[in-house]
Amino acid sequence: MNFFRFFLFLSLFSIAFSHENVNPHILPRPLIIEYPENVEDQFKDSRDELQLQCTSWRFAVETNNLSPWKTIPEECADYVKDYMTSRSYRIDLERVSKEAGVYARSVELSGDGKDVWVFDVDETLLSNLPYYAEHGYGLEVFDLVEFDKWVEKGTAPAIESSLKLYEEVLKLGFKIFLLTGRSERQRTVTVENLINVGFQDWDKLILRASEDHGKLATIYKTEKRNGMVEEGFRILGNSGDQWSDLLGSSMSSRSFKLPNPMYYIP
Amino acid sequence: MNFFRFFLFLSLFSIAFSHENVNPHILPRPLIIEYPENVEDQFKDSRDELQLQCTSWRFAVETNNLSPWKTIPEECADYVKDYMTSRSYRIDLERVSKEAGVYARSVELSGDGKDVWVFDVDETLLSNLPYYAEHGYGLEVFDLVEFDKWVEKGTAPAIESSLKLYEEVLKLGFKIFLLTGRSERQRTVTVENLINVGFQDWDKLILRASEDHGKLATIYKTEKRNGMVEEGFRILGNSGDQWSDLLGSSMSSRSFKLPNPMYYIP
Repeated sequence: MNFFRFFLFLSLFSIAFSHENVNPHILPRPLIIEYPENVEDQFKDSRDELQLQCTSWRFAVETNNLSPWKTIPEECADYVKDYMTSRSYRIDLERVSKEAGVYARSVELSGDGKDVWVFDVDETLLSNLPYYAEHGYGLEVFDLVEFDKWVEKGTAPAIESSLKLYEEVLKLGFKIFLLTGRSERQRTVTVENLINVGFQDWDKLILRASEDHGKLATIYKTEKRNGMVEEGFRILGNSGDQWSDLLGSSMSSRSFKLPNPMYYIP
Repeated sequence: MNFFRFFLFLSLFSIAFSHENVNPHILPRPLIIEYPENVEDQFKDSRDELQLQCTSWRFAVETNNLSPWKTIPEECADYVKDYMTSRSYRIDLERVSKEAGVYARSVELSGDGKDVWVFDVDETLLSNLPYYAEHGYGLEVFDLVEFDKWVEKGTAPAIESSLKLYEEVLKLGFKIFLLTGRSERQRTVTVENLINVGFQDWDKLILRASEDHGKLATIYKTEKRNGMVEEGFRILGNSGDQWSDLLGSSMSSRSFKLPNPMYYIP
C-alpha cells in the first residue's frame, strides 16, 4: 500500500470537511472547496518526506545494510523509476567508472600477465533497464523465465561509462575476467551481446556451470575468485552492482560498487 | 572556490548586461534591471545540479568507491552541513539501527558467551557533531591536537538510535566489544563519556596501544578481530561509520555501515 499517498489523501479529506464538522447547523456554504492556504506546502512536505525516506532506503541498499529483499518498497516505486531514468543514475555510474579509472592508472602492473580486473556483467557492463522498465523497475518479484527470454534476445545495451572503463583497463594491461551469475547455457548469446555493444578481448568469461546452480552468488563468486588466486592471479580491481559480486574471500584490492536500487542478489 | 556559485554569478551578470551590448546607441532605458523570466528557474537548476552532484559524491563515500580523501569537496560544504544537521542524517542513522536490530533478533545465540557484537565508538556510539560544527563539517583538514582537546572534555553526546540498538543487543545476550581508534591514553575519559551518556556493561573496550599507533585503521581493527576469533569468539554483528571498521579479515557475519560524509579513515 502506498502509505504516504494514503496519508496525504486522508489529511486533505479531513481538512476539506473539517469546517462542516465544526458548524453543522449553519446554511450551506458556497460550493467552492476552500483549501487552506498551505495545502500546496502540505503536498510539497509530503513529497519531500517521501523523497527523504526513499533516498535513505537507497543508501541502505547501496551500503549493504538491508536484509535480503525481493522487491523495492511500493511507496518508492516512483522514486526508483525517476532515479533510474534520470541523470542521477548516469551521474552515479560515471562517478564509479571515473574513480575506478583513477585507481587503475595508479596501479603499477607486474607485467607477468597475472594482474586481473574482474567485471560482473548484468547492471555492470550490460544494462537490463529496457527489461526492468517493463517490470516496474524492481516493483515486481523477479521472474526468471521472463528474464531469460529477455537475455536470449541479446539486445542489452552497454553501460557507456563501464565500456569506457573497460577499454581503459584493457589498454593499461590488466587481464579482464568476466564473472557472471548467468548460466553456461547463455554463453553464446552473452558473448554476442557483449561484442555487439563494444566489449571485446576479455581473457575469461565465467558463467554458472551446472554444479554452480543453486549456490548463493556470494559463494559462487568467492569460489571462482579463490580459483583465480590459486592460479596465481592478483585481483586488483572488481566492479559489480551487487555486494555479492564484491564480498567474500579472495576479495579484490579495490572494489567498485555500481548503483542498483532495483534488485538484490544474495 | 565555490565553482557553481561563481558560474551562476557570471551567468546572471552576462544576462543582466546582454541587452546593453546589443543596442549600445539607443537612449538609456528605465533603470529597472529586467531579469529574463526564467532567472528563478536558472537559480533552481543550478541548486538542483549541485544537490545531484553532492548526493552522488555522498553515495560514492558511503559505498567506499572513493580513493582516500582528506576534506569534503568545497562545493558540497553547504550540502554536508545541511545533511548532518537535518532529519536526513537522523533518518539514515535510525534505519541502520533498525536493520541491525532486525538482524540481531533473528540470530540464534549459542549461549556459550562467545557471540559478539563489535561497535566502533566515534560517529557510531558517540557523536562528535559539536566538534565538527566548529570545523566546517569536514571542510577543514583534520587537526589531531584540536580533536584530542575535544575528546578530553568527555562531552560527546550519544547517537540515540545507536544507544537503542546497543541496549537491545546487550539484552539479547551478545557480548559487546568496543573497538576504537582512540588511544589507550584516552581510556578514562572515553569510559566516563560513554557511561555518562548511557552506554554500560560492555565486555571489552579496545583502544590503540602504543604499538598500534601509526597502523592503518583497517590493519589495526583486523588484527583485533583476528584476536577475538582466535579466542573463540564469533563476530556476528559489527557497527561502524567507516569501511575500515568493517572490512579486512575476520569480518563480521553482518556489517552495518553508519552514515558519515564528514571524514574518511583509511
